[in-house]
Amino acid sequence: MTEAALRDAFQRVRRQTAELAAPLAIEDYVVRSMPDAQPAKWHLGHTSWYFETFVLAAPGVLGREGVGASPIEPEYREIFGVPDAGVEVRHDRGALSRPTVAEVFDYRRRVDDAMSALLEGEVPEDVRERVVIGLHHEQQHQERLLADLKHLFSRNPLHPAYRETSGRPRGGAPPPLRFVSFAGGTRSVGAAGTGFAYDNERPRHERLIAPFQLGSRLITNGEYREFMEEGGYRERSLWLADGWAARAAGGWEAPLHWIRQGDGFAEFTLAGLMPLRPAAPVVHVSHFEADAFARWREARLPAEFEWESAAADQRVSGRFLEDGHLQPEPAPAAAHHGASGPVQLFGDVWEWTASAYLPYPGFRPSGLFGQSTGRSMSGRMVLRGGSCLTPASYVRASYRHVLRPDARWQATGIRIARDG
Amino acid sequence: MTEAALRDAFQRVRRQTAELAAPLAIEDYVVRSMPDAQPAKWHLGHTSWYFETFVLAAPGVLGREGVGASPIEPEYREIFGVPDAGVEVRHDRGALSRPTVAEVFDYRRRVDDAMSALLEGEVPEDVRERVVIGLHHEQQHQERLLADLKHLFSRNPLHPAYRETSGRPRGGAPPPLRFVSFAGGTRSVGAAGTGFAYDNERPRHERLIAPFQLGSRLITNGEYREFMEEGGYRERSLWLADGWAARAAGGWEAPLHWIRQGDGFAEFTLAGLMPLRPAAPVVHVSHFEADAFARWREARLPAEFEWESAAADQRVSGRFLEDGHLQPEPAPAAAHHGASGPVQLFGDVWEWTASAYLPYPGFRPSGLFGQSTGRSMSGRMVLRGGSCLTPASYVRASYRHVLRPDARWQATGIRIARDG
Amino acid sequence: MTEAALRDAFQRVRRQTAELAAPLAIEDYVVRSMPDAQPAKWHLGHTSWYFETFVLAAPGVLGREGVGASPIEPEYREIFGVPDAGVEVRHDRGALSRPTVAEVFDYRRRVDDAMSALLEGEVPEDVRERVVIGLHHEQQHQERLLADLKHLFSRNPLHPAYRETSGRPRGGAPPPLRFVSFAGGTRSVGAAGTGFAYDNERPRHERLIAPFQLGSRLITNGEYREFMEEGGYRERSLWLADGWAARAAGGWEAPLHWIRQGDGFAEFTLAGLMPLRPAAPVVHVSHFEADAFARWREARLPAEFEWESAAADQRVSGRFLEDGHLQPEPAPAAAHHGASGPVQLFGDVWEWTASAYLPYPGFRPSGLFGQSTGRSMSGRMVLRGGSCLTPASYVRASYRHVLRPDARWQATGIRIARDG
Amino acid sequence: MTEAALRDAFQRVRRQTAELAAPLAIEDYVVRSMPDAQPAKWHLGHTSWYFETFVLAAPGVLGREGVGASPIEPEYREIFGVPDAGVEVRHDRGALSRPTVAEVFDYRRRVDDAMSALLEGEVPEDVRERVVIGLHHEQQHQERLLADLKHLFSRNPLHPAYRETSGRPRGGAPPPLRFVSFAGGTRSVGAAGTGFAYDNERPRHERLIAPFQLGSRLITNGEYREFMEEGGYRERSLWLADGWAARAAGGWEAPLHWIRQGDGFAEFTLAGLMPLRPAAPVVHVSHFEADAFARWREARLPAEFEWESAAADQRVSGRFLEDGHLQPEPAPAAAHHGASGPVQLFGDVWEWTASAYLPYPGFRPSGLFGQSTGRSMSGRMVLRGGSCLTPASYVRASYRHVLRPDARWQATGIRIARDG
Repeated sequence: MTEAALRDAFQRVRRQTAELAAPLAIEDYVVRSMPDAQPAKWHLGHTSWYFETFVLAAPGVLGREGVGASPIEPEYREIFGVPDAGVEVRHDRGALSRPTVAEVFDYRRRVDDAMSALLEGEVPEDVRERVVIGLHHEQQHQERLLADLKHLFSRNPLHPAYRETSGRPRGGAPPPLRFVSFAGGTRSVGAAGTGFAYDNERPRHERLIAPFQLGSRLITNGEYREFMEEGGYRERSLWLADGWAARAAGGWEAPLHWIRQGDGFAEFTLAGLMPLRPAAPVVHVSHFEADAFARWREARLPAEFEWESAAADQRVSGRFLEDGHLQPEPAPAAAHHGASGPVQLFGDVWEWTASAYLPYPGFRPSGLFGQSTGRSMSGRMVLRGGSCLTPASYVRASYRHVLRPDARWQATGIRIARDG
Repeated sequence: MTEAALRDAFQRVRRQTAELAAPLAIEDYVVRSMPDAQPAKWHLGHTSWYFETFVLAAPGVLGREGVGASPIEPEYREIFGVPDAGVEVRHDRGALSRPTVAEVFDYRRRVDDAMSALLEGEVPEDVRERVVIGLHHEQQHQERLLADLKHLFSRNPLHPAYRETSGRPRGGAPPPLRFVSFAGGTRSVGAAGTGFAYDNERPRHERLIAPFQLGSRLITNGEYREFMEEGGYRERSLWLADGWAARAAGGWEAPLHWIRQGDGFAEFTLAGLMPLRPAAPVVHVSHFEADAFARWREARLPAEFEWESAAADQRVSGRFLEDGHLQPEPAPAAAHHGASGPVQLFGDVWEWTASAYLPYPGFRPSGLFGQSTGRSMSGRMVLRGGSCLTPASYVRASYRHVLRPDARWQATGIRIARDG
Repeated sequence: MTEAALRDAFQRVRRQTAELAAPLAIEDYVVRSMPDAQPAKWHLGHTSWYFETFVLAAPGVLGREGVGASPIEPEYREIFGVPDAGVEVRHDRGALSRPTVAEVFDYRRRVDDAMSALLEGEVPEDVRERVVIGLHHEQQHQERLLADLKHLFSRNPLHPAYRETSGRPRGGAPPPLRFVSFAGGTRSVGAAGTGFAYDNERPRHERLIAPFQLGSRLITNGEYREFMEEGGYRERSLWLADGWAARAAGGWEAPLHWIRQGDGFAEFTLAGLMPLRPAAPVVHVSHFEADAFARWREARLPAEFEWESAAADQRVSGRFLEDGHLQPEPAPAAAHHGASGPVQLFGDVWEWTASAYLPYPGFRPSGLFGQSTGRSMSGRMVLRGGSCLTPASYVRASYRHVLRPDARWQATGIRIARDG
Repeated sequence: MTEAALRDAFQRVRRQTAELAAPLAIEDYVVRSMPDAQPAKWHLGHTSWYFETFVLAAPGVLGREGVGASPIEPEYREIFGVPDAGVEVRHDRGALSRPTVAEVFDYRRRVDDAMSALLEGEVPEDVRERVVIGLHHEQQHQERLLADLKHLFSRNPLHPAYRETSGRPRGGAPPPLRFVSFAGGTRSVGAAGTGFAYDNERPRHERLIAPFQLGSRLITNGEYREFMEEGGYRERSLWLADGWAARAAGGWEAPLHWIRQGDGFAEFTLAGLMPLRPAAPVVHVSHFEADAFARWREARLPAEFEWESAAADQRVSGRFLEDGHLQPEPAPAAAHHGASGPVQLFGDVWEWTASAYLPYPGFRPSGLFGQSTGRSMSGRMVLRGGSCLTPASYVRASYRHVLRPDARWQATGIRIARDG
């Protein structure tokens, strides 16, 4: 990436965060609705803290007299830092009224000023790497900001809307679900080349894959309702033991954000309460629900490497955050005729895989995030492909998203697979 | 109370609530730091909901076409109502970003307008009673608003201040602690006359009281530190069994809001972090700590009727909310010489008694609050006298404040007693 | 008590414990079904540990060479001792397979041998007092042993019986419930004279009591079912707030040990599952249920001093442990005609009062148990009168039994009262 | 397996269970020390319930008049059955005093009698399969019985011993730890042939494995103490995030069953408290501890297929249950010289792998246990090789043992690996 391109990217990503926050009332920045979520102002402060801590204040970057030597707001370290960076967090992030939103934006502006000054000059290679990681890190928080807000608003009896979705919902009846066959053999997986990738996508290595089939599109709300109507949530034998327990503990009877209305369901969206669209992909299901659905369909979830080898040849294109719909859309009409491969691999919803999140052979934690990507390699499952809340430039075929199997508040959905 | 006096009181109390909220940033209205506390905007909305529900919308008050017939904001009922009024609360009050603060103030203004219109006319006796109860109810929430904010700010690493305290801290060395003797005999306790009192202060009745002695003033921080330094928090035999368990569960080693600094302590106050003043009354202790302290002093806490019979002859005067200090102050110099009775009975800190909160003989729940005062008559202790956060006109000698014995976030302190 | 009488009492009480244990299988001694309960072998060991610790090993009792100097089983101190005696208990009493039952009985025998030798000689006054307390202590554990076993067996799908009850169930239709009036005035309450009483029954002192009425007999199962059928468990306004929460948390829909069978109920008893007898007193209700029932009947529970002043003139006589029924029995026929005072004050079921457990004016903890009776004076309610599981010689009019208001596993029932 | 061999196996396995129970006091059968464990009598009853339910009572096995048609003890179904077989368990297995131990043995005997009668005749193939699975099932419970007892005894202040270990502890200083290199390539893994294997070991399939190295022997207590002394339990960066949390929640500072004594440690064993032997393999560590230890050694845990391909050529031989030591033993002297491959792969301790427990490609749940092996495929890690508590005939190179990563009460230890 050239220095000009880096400057551009920095401005663009930082501006996108601010634009995502624009529809919020001050009150919306302050609270969160569960420990897994963070208040919006924390996302804004934390992504700035990143650049201050790992770039501006990094040893040797700005020298003795630089910003790094005299922290912008020393007390923000405890508030916006994380334990992986050695920060001890003793407060409840969801119960902090200060710093105010204005103060957080002011902090953000000062970090941006210092960063802009830095990026004007000659930037050493290792510093550029840190900036690039910081931008990916911020994009990740853009998606989480929206998922956290959606959860927050969904719990409010007033059912507030974040904003009207732009554009018109596309698509009518979904194309029929087919299975697309893939040959087995040795496949190279993991990040190739020198473009940006997290350490957990490396090293690129070979996997032996048996012939398999992949669903031609995502599972729809309509298909998921069939599962529900045939007793899917009450049939113990369809569920993993931990899933059965999570279902009971959470009182699950439908995907998160489905609200029973008369005989049917409405769906809470970032545009408020909406009728459920049968043709649209089901979203806000846990791994456990995806797995039970697949078993009910006499199928299974794809392994992450099956997914990756199927996606490797496709262009990274789909309904991402920039589309502005903020909800998954029905499979495109193109899929009705002609499209030989699976559609919707990228965008719409993160696709649960059958793969536990584990290190690749020869994995070496590296960079600023090495520690934290490696430390979560227990008890989590891999998802692939990005969602309607994901910035388009954030995703690639080798990207591994990671969640606990009972997580439901992010835009997670289902593609099924079976042996070839 | 004349109608003019009622109008005046309504304006005054409602204005005082708004004035207490004035120093807040919008963010401060939204969050709370524990389930026992409420966000400031809830206090504002709830006290307005009271007047809407029990006055404006009460059957027969405003007639068919009145405000009562078409609710001001129907959706606010779930948000600002309480289970005792039949409202089912399914959300987390500390995780509601909407309605916004501006919307809550707008709701408040509309209720005030309707109330003012109502109070301009002739007001039936039963409606006046409801208004009077509503004003006492609002004063109670004024105190809670400050206690809840103090707890919220105390958990914030930035240690924000609510506002500078007005006036100068008074007092130097506290007068020596003496015991004032009271003769035993039959005493009438409970609310006398026709002035306002809650149903739990009635009926006035007779109690047989043995001779007793009451500490001449409140226990100070300095005295409480002696207890700590002599191992008070580590000596099991000083504590009630439930207190010993609460101490362990909460990790108590000092009163709430004391923060160790070097060899000593600072105290978090509504004016921010302050040096601990040895002469000032100790505050933010639980019943369990007060009880253990008293036992360590070879004394005990007073029964509520001992306190009331001692206070019955005194004028209701002391350091209340209107003083603006918002912290308890050392016993007045007058207490050094001459003052024959106990001082500081009113104001400064709520005084824990040895009395469980139980109904008086012949108690009949009455009025709008009958139900809720009566329903909490289990597992709680009585406190007396009001605090530096209590509006002066809220308290009387017969007033019974009620908290669970492990509560520490309100302005609660210690006066000791012994058998006469 | 003469020395011979003391020897007799010692033999009799210790033998009674062994007789109560006789029907048990070895397995029944080992487990418990909740933390409030203890395994039977713990009751056996603990009551023996008492005599070893507070009598045999007490300083000066047996001299340098006595048993006290070389403990019988040093390792049993941690197993059978209690925190109030300075013992740190780090294990789960319900998960100890050793010492075996035979070892516990052996320990018991060795303590008995040493005690018998001691009691043969001249026994100093203070040692005699300790022995007497120890016997009352053991009687208390006799009742708890049965209550704990009943709870244990009730949770077993096999519904085992402890033993057939002896004698035949008495009584048919209960006499109608009347209210017996008592004049108000000053009454002396608390333990009188020099007979044994716990420190919490002293000092005897005067109370001012308003005229009141007491139910002529205990509330029956039949009457309690009416309360249930009229929605007593679903009507929030009948319940204390803490009671409403306890009801929800425990899923209460009937007294403990009632088991729905078809349209009706069976009752689990120490003789196994039995048909519910409408005429028999309701048993295994919490304070919260008793209080809600009383409110439903437009009555209240009696204050402990009302109960005591009513019981003071009666002989301590009723259905106690020695009767062998182990279930409360319908009010005696005598109550139909003639009996002017309330019946069933003693025996059958412990009667919940409206009184919190608090110290009497001038209370001084004393004796070995002073500490522990005083330390539990928070969060508990007083019950009076003894039950069908209480040894007859354990109870007196001034005896204060104490339980948390949500406790249901002991033989607790209801007598209602109202203002006179 | 011939019918005679099956009869023999049945007698031998059932007898071995009884022999393992022989040293127990009746009290030892009844309790358990945590929810993951079961009382000994439950293991005895449950393994018998298996044969009754899946063999004797299976449709068509014994015909209309057979045992299967009239259950041996209908009420035992709820007590000894499991939810996977459709049994609703509403009681606490650790709080059942009945059925008595004698009754459980009697039940066992009646099942054995019926089984013996059945096995005397001609046994259809599918019934034989069920018997074989039942025997493996029972062997699994033999190991768990001992692990559960060890945990139970370890929590008892009396530190009881299960029995003296037979034989003499072998071995002195452990041979130095080397790394044994294995070439990469495609390896067939999973159960081969027609011998018994669980469904989760199938289908046999190919894996692509990179060159790797395996520790030549198990990690010893001495090596683990170095990790502890260098602060292993306090260094956050060594731990998986979930492990760090489990460590804090459990207060882990050493392996389970290590007891600090002066400067060193004793180890609780089935023979009671013993000095810690530095040369013996460390045991009773969680996956999280094994993983942190490996990271501290700049190594990692082996993948399950690395382990399996290394073990595939070895004879299944090592220190198993039948040895009678019941503790892992130091690596054999043979390992000092000559042994080219890794030693201690079988027996001594289960070896934690880096592999999450997931289905093999093409996995089909089958047999009686298909359901339950498949349902636990979430949140668990694979262990390999068997332990000193495992019956020798229970283990094979393809056998996958499965535990949650925080489990420590079974005989689990560490072998490290690294990239080749």
